[in-house]
Amino acid sequence: MLSGYQIIQEGPTKVYLYLETEQVPVATNPVKGNAAVALKFRENHIALRYGVSFISSEQARENLEREIRTYSVDQVAQIGRKIWNETLSKIKVEGDDENAKTVFYTSLYRAYERMIKLSEDGRYYSGSDQEIHNDAGIPFYNDDWIRDTYRATHPLRILIEPDMEEAMITSYIRMAQESKEGWMPTFPEVTGDSHRMNGNHAVAVIWDAYSKGLRGFDLEAAYNACRGAICDKSLLPWVKAPNSELDDFYWEKGFYPALHPDEKEYCSAVHPFEKRQAISVILGNSYDNWCLAEIAKALGKTEDYEYFLNASYFYRNVFNPETKFFHPKDRHGKFIEPFDYRYAGGQGAREYYGENNGWIYRWDVQHNIADLIHLMGGPDEFIRNLNDMFRTPLGKSKYAFYAQIPDHTGNVGQFSMANEPCLHIPYLYNYAGQPWKTQQRITKLLREWFRNDLMGVPGDEDGGGMTAFVVFSSMGFYPVTPGSPTYNIGSPQFEKVTLKLGNGNTFRIIAENYGADNKYIQSATLNGKEWNKPWFAHSDIIEGATLVLVMGDKPNYQWGADLEMVPPSLDPLNYQ
Amino acid sequence: MLSGYQIIQEGPTKVYLYLETEQVPVATNPVKGNAAVALKFRENHIALRYGVSFISSEQARENLEREIRTYSVDQVAQIGRKIWNETLSKIKVEGDDENAKTVFYTSLYRAYERMIKLSEDGRYYSGSDQEIHNDAGIPFYNDDWIRDTYRATHPLRILIEPDMEEAMITSYIRMAQESKEGWMPTFPEVTGDSHRMNGNHAVAVIWDAYSKGLRGFDLEAAYNACRGAICDKSLLPWVKAPNSELDDFYWEKGFYPALHPDEKEYCSAVHPFEKRQAISVILGNSYDNWCLAEIAKALGKTEDYEYFLNASYFYRNVFNPETKFFHPKDRHGKFIEPFDYRYAGGQGAREYYGENNGWIYRWDVQHNIADLIHLMGGPDEFIRNLNDMFRTPLGKSKYAFYAQIPDHTGNVGQFSMANEPCLHIPYLYNYAGQPWKTQQRITKLLREWFRNDLMGVPGDEDGGGMTAFVVFSSMGFYPVTPGSPTYNIGSPQFEKVTLKLGNGNTFRIIAENYGADNKYIQSATLNGKEWNKPWFAHSDIIEGATLVLVMGDKPNYQWGADLEMVPPSLDPLNYQ
Repeated sequence: MLSGYQIIQEGPTKVYLYLETEQVPVATNPVKGNAAVALKFRENHIALRYGVSFISSEQARENLEREIRTYSVDQVAQIGRKIWNETLSKIKVEGDDENAKTVFYTSLYRAYERMIKLSEDGRYYSGSDQEIHNDAGIPFYNDDWIRDTYRATHPLRILIEPDMEEAMITSYIRMAQESKEGWMPTFPEVTGDSHRMNGNHAVAVIWDAYSKGLRGFDLEAAYNACRGAICDKSLLPWVKAPNSELDDFYWEKGFYPALHPDEKEYCSAVHPFEKRQAISVILGNSYDNWCLAEIAKALGKTEDYEYFLNASYFYRNVFNPETKFFHPKDRHGKFIEPFDYRYAGGQGAREYYGENNGWIYRWDVQHNIADLIHLMGGPDEFIRNLNDMFRTPLGKSKYAFYAQIPDHTGNVGQFSMANEPCLHIPYLYNYAGQPWKTQQRITKLLREWFRNDLMGVPGDEDGGGMTAFVVFSSMGFYPVTPGSPTYNIGSPQFEKVTLKLGNGNTFRIIAENYGADNKYIQSATLNGKEWNKPWFAHSDIIEGATLVLVMGDKPNYQWGADLEMVPPSLDPLNYQ
Repeated sequence: MLSGYQIIQEGPTKVYLYLETEQVPVATNPVKGNAAVALKFRENHIALRYGVSFISSEQARENLEREIRTYSVDQVAQIGRKIWNETLSKIKVEGDDENAKTVFYTSLYRAYERMIKLSEDGRYYSGSDQEIHNDAGIPFYNDDWIRDTYRATHPLRILIEPDMEEAMITSYIRMAQESKEGWMPTFPEVTGDSHRMNGNHAVAVIWDAYSKGLRGFDLEAAYNACRGAICDKSLLPWVKAPNSELDDFYWEKGFYPALHPDEKEYCSAVHPFEKRQAISVILGNSYDNWCLAEIAKALGKTEDYEYFLNASYFYRNVFNPETKFFHPKDRHGKFIEPFDYRYAGGQGAREYYGENNGWIYRWDVQHNIADLIHLMGGPDEFIRNLNDMFRTPLGKSKYAFYAQIPDHTGNVGQFSMANEPCLHIPYLYNYAGQPWKTQQRITKLLREWFRNDLMGVPGDEDGGGMTAFVVFSSMGFYPVTPGSPTYNIGSPQFEKVTLKLGNGNTFRIIAENYGADNKYIQSATLNGKEWNKPWFAHSDIIEGATLVLVMGDKPNYQWGADLEMVPPSLDPLNYQ
């Protein structure tokens, strides 16, 4: 028996180890100058097993005894396989495309990567206050990259693992309450909130869950933590600190000021590598403010609702009516000129956007697509801009482009299949009367970029953030706007999909006339009723439902094309 | 009717145009400020046809009249299709892998891209002296990137288009003779020899053709032009000028001196972007010197033979016996240290190598693989180094690696499927007793990197340079050493291949027990005789032959593994 611990990232978090060997060592010697021990055995084959804990070596031993009672790797594998088979069979897909199935189940498996359950026999270590807490029967989860997972990973869990999702939201609230500032985390890790990227999208996860009927968490406590994170904490990327002068400017003027290329940074709070990401911060926070407004309304906080709803329109303050792009402004309110939406912003386009260029952030208003269409000049102009998105060349050699924006890969024109801010974009044709283009585009993207061969996944997998897109899209629908209890219809990659919903009901999607070339929806029924909308509501399916999509190899330009029946978003006229 | 000309690359070369329309224009107006004319028609559909010439507008009209006698695009396409079908049917492949066939014929088509026949009714424009010449019945060809095409494109033509290849070699000799200096060109284009890249590999093309029995060109004239290019012209990359101080150093000391990273360039002849590429120049010239030595021998020039044969071993002068890599030396003969073979050499590794790093140039001694094995310490060490080639990680993120060495893509470990200096490397297992690894590696590379889908071709296609590798390798053999009348055996991707040789004979390759998993040769016969060598000679097949390879899904470690039967190269002991 051996036990000890390792300090993670210079502390204070420790990971404890307890290790046993089946054979008894004949000698045990510390290794000089290393935190290591050498064991000597008579035998050639040594079986060992170990447990880990964030609480103590003793708890590591208990964790080991609870989970691994054998020295046989085969037996451990068998137990693991059983658990995974049960888990992955919550969604059953049928059809003759074996590669699509492999991609689907690999993606579903990855969507379970995070968050990770850290409760150990009813107790957990919290990185927020470095204390051990009692979990009161609700398991504690940690490790999440919410900038990526709020889009599809959490929404997927709301459907098939609602209890787990509620426990995760409760974990978020606990982490906020256990922290000094009480702010909702954005990048919870075992060592605490590392607060990477930008935005405070836990608020979207919480409102999404609540809007879809989940009640197993304290909404008021969640609201307070989110409000603190959004209003009292700086919105600067990768910065966890009270509001800076840029944040005061933001809340007063309604936009985050950006620097001219030759202007030196004057705000000492800005992260030297991550920069201001001015447009990205405005767009992300507009979305978060809409979610916060909706929670305020649900809690009867009318004044807060009005305030945050107004702030949810701040993206308008940086919309350039000439170019129809979101365009950074300097502190005097002047657009930065000259400007190239492909390359502006330096390394990773971080001065203005972040990891992706201005073409991609052009669509980053998921809470109000109707208003984006309005701003662009109507559905025709919107569609033209969407088409341009997928066909405008990089304009540089790939290596020169990547040297500047290395996360902007998986290129289809200016679109990037490899980064999460793009995931909803192919569905936006549904909002402007051309659902057949969504069907075409989604099928093409899935088949070209997510393949059962050496190409693997484009970009980063981001803890299930990317693959949850594949899971949803392959089934034939997608949550474009977490926080809106609705789903866009795309194009199913299977003949039949059977979802065991978390509440015990079943949602079936049947593709009639299924076939490799038949990617276009000709007609549809939901529970036997004719269905001509390119979306459905959570309430349409959560009590159990069957969606039948009749497919064909030619577009039906009429199906789902009625502009009165587009997926809901905020009304442009709501704007005060 | 319209005619005129355009000046190419600031002159003096001109391309002349003659254009006709089927419908008669009702008005013709020059466009102000542009070398253009506006034609006005009454009709909606206008048919036009045009001819080009490098001689005159009158000749452009004659070219048009000879080649396009119709206004019907369909008829022109039909004529083109007939010519291509006849051409591509010189090689017939059979088997059930339809994708492999598409890739094969696309590759064969591309292998015909260059050189381009420039004779116009028996006359041609020469970029070397800007004069019009009579072609004396031998068509004049131009446009070739011999750094890439000497490897497989020219060797392929020797088999299936020997008359064309002889005319191309004659064209090379003409271009040299028409030029002021009389030097053999390396990058002949219509405007003259642009002399890009490094090496003087026309000498390999010429010796390869001669060693394989082609006689339709003047070997003595070719020798003089090659000798001039190699001995009197600087070996510096992208430089067409008399010898510099670095060249004098090279011929005296036997290696090209390199700069330390902090050392300033002192030789004004060096191209500011292309740098010295010191190792690449030494290796390329060693190879060229071997070819030149062989030609000298054929011409009975014994003294020259001895001189150039000795120089063909100069690569030894920069072999580092510690690391077993080719390692640049400074002008005092000291290895540049510290040194990283992955990243040293700056942009494109150009100070020391060029487009690829030191790992790839480690194998760039095609004329003497036996000696390379000897230098590395024997076949076991050689195989270990080959294995490392394919499994040593980039050691950087891809985008950072590409920002430095953007042409080093198609990565498999340090190997690059995307650049020609790599093409022969997978065959080198044949030289050290492990042909099964060549069979495995070649199959994997072909299937992963040359695909009938959106991945296309890795790197640059280089005027057939890359795809001729696909043509040969898919048939099951490859010319590792142009200039040696031998071919390495790899692993055929087809059940049956039928080559119509240029001399009217037929070479058949039959894969018995053909199947996707059966990539390993179990046994072989050539013309009914048992065949246990992983190579064959040009003379074994050129009178017509049938090679039967019996395939299987497990390696036969014995077949072709006898170290006494490896493909021939210079004897290490030949070295004086």
